[in-house]
Amino acid sequence: MKTEVALGIDIGGTNTVFGLVDKEGKCIAESSVPTNKNEYASFLFSRLFEKVNDIYKGISDKYVLAGIGIGAPNANYYKGTVELPPNLNWGVVNIIEIVKQYFNLPVAITNDANAAAIGEMEFGAAKGMKDFIIITLGTGVGSGIVIDGKLVYGHDGFAGEIGHTIVFIGGRQCGCGRKGCLETYTSASGLKRTFYELLSGSKEESTLGKISFNDLTSIMIYEAALNGDKIALEAFDYTAKILGLKLADAIEHTSPEAIFLYGGLSMAGDFIFKPTKKYMEEFVLDIFKNKVKLLPSGLKNGETAILGASALIWNEIKRKR
Amino acid sequence: MKTEVALGIDIGGTNTVFGLVDKEGKCIAESSVPTNKNEYASFLFSRLFEKVNDIYKGISDKYVLAGIGIGAPNANYYKGTVELPPNLNWGVVNIIEIVKQYFNLPVAITNDANAAAIGEMEFGAAKGMKDFIIITLGTGVGSGIVIDGKLVYGHDGFAGEIGHTIVFIGGRQCGCGRKGCLETYTSASGLKRTFYELLSGSKEESTLGKISFNDLTSIMIYEAALNGDKIALEAFDYTAKILGLKLADAIEHTSPEAIFLYGGLSMAGDFIFKPTKKYMEEFVLDIFKNKVKLLPSGLKNGETAILGASALIWNEIKRKR
Repeated sequence: MKTEVALGIDIGGTNTVFGLVDKEGKCIAESSVPTNKNEYASFLFSRLFEKVNDIYKGISDKYVLAGIGIGAPNANYYKGTVELPPNLNWGVVNIIEIVKQYFNLPVAITNDANAAAIGEMEFGAAKGMKDFIIITLGTGVGSGIVIDGKLVYGHDGFAGEIGHTIVFIGGRQCGCGRKGCLETYTSASGLKRTFYELLSGSKEESTLGKISFNDLTSIMIYEAALNGDKIALEAFDYTAKILGLKLADAIEHTSPEAIFLYGGLSMAGDFIFKPTKKYMEEFVLDIFKNKVKLLPSGLKNGETAILGASALIWNEIKRKR
Repeated sequence: MKTEVALGIDIGGTNTVFGLVDKEGKCIAESSVPTNKNEYASFLFSRLFEKVNDIYKGISDKYVLAGIGIGAPNANYYKGTVELPPNLNWGVVNIIEIVKQYFNLPVAITNDANAAAIGEMEFGAAKGMKDFIIITLGTGVGSGIVIDGKLVYGHDGFAGEIGHTIVFIGGRQCGCGRKGCLETYTSASGLKRTFYELLSGSKEESTLGKISFNDLTSIMIYEAALNGDKIALEAFDYTAKILGLKLADAIEHTSPEAIFLYGGLSMAGDFIFKPTKKYMEEFVLDIFKNKVKLLPSGLKNGETAILGASALIWNEIKRKR
């Protein structure tokens, strides 16, 4: 008997990565195509599926495709659409309709952070947990909320936008058009903004002072922190304070067993986990204190997107059976 | 055949109200006993059940008791406990164990706002809704979150404490021991605190200027607003701004179909609903704008607590069948 695999697709602004993944989360084959932000979505899928078919031919004696799971920005789980993604000129497009022209199989789509949450639940460190939250700290800040073993999609399929809860009324300008969103403080560029605010307000010198604003990256701030740069260390502490504040809010909403930090800034390890945990405990209501774990993702950074997207389809098949 | 009724009990700081309620939310009989904050919980239930039995005797030819649902402050649904309620000297007490000494029937306990959410779902304006939030604006600020037709209890049974999410770091002192909680801005006393802050910062005169701080109530502020008092009107607007901000946060977490405002301040009608809706739309992420209804409770204010507590037990019986 052939082994069932799901095609997991992660649509990024630059590359679209995909993999054929079995039910245990083992990636049988993996590849990618460039996304090309100015072409229609249907063209991307045409190029993508050509490459998938080439790979699938070589393994179809052993494996059978069971469904297609997709993680994409601004994806709506209920409608199967991607709506006005900030980095792709797609407008509103029904992805499931496009995919169904190629495959008569179960198809599901959700946003990147939700896919990561399902991946974490099926294959990662959230295995066996019923209630948890995953926060993705990358270029943007995303979140996926799991309650009672199910991902929360909410009434209109867009639930889990903790990155766009407001920290300060009239705060930093956000890419979403509003001001003061969590994303403007705890994303990679949020850390950089904090670094320059602190540098501007201090008499302390930083080893990063000789680098231009445009050239400075969050990784450089991490490396400076490793070398004891005071402003860099302060920038991590402030980022963690804001994150801890909003994680406390999140705990008070849905009372999770654990919160996972994933991607970009989470790679800074103790620089982000230790102070975030400290501030989270400081800000949270007494009845929740010292109860909620703050954990790193249990999945390999490069594979999570594909695993998450494929897990989405296993999850989908389970729901319907 | 006899009609099944649930005993719904609402434990308040001053009075404990109870009623025998059928599955349609009709209250067959209703009464109360004083709570007496300094006696043991078991004494309260002893007095309470004596009165319940007296009433039940008179109707037991037609009705049969199916279970006991209880709404109480700091109640834990999973453990059946009430833990350190701020207005009762109970410590940590297992309420279900006490009730089981009197009745061998299903018993369930949850906090007041959660009970109100279930009442709203079973008998009120949330009938047929799968995803909604109820916010109680009283002496404190409570909340109940319903996702996919189920009340969210979370990992440890205390979910839904939106009233204790923090608005301003280092803000107003809250009864919970922390600072800047939503409760300190949008409860009845929060409105009063805002009124005095605005009065102190303004050159405007208020008709309420001749009333002492201790004597001033939120109802007086409401009446002054009705009469066009500028500071009172501003106080409502500021309260609504803070509430709108945190409702936007709540929408971004769980994407509800509607948010219900209930109790105390919600009685101020347009003074609170209109500006709260305006600010909520202003603060919320684009993909949610003009989608989420802001509604008053569909239940009578006096009966909700009992209906909610009784509905808790119908809900419980449904879960287990």
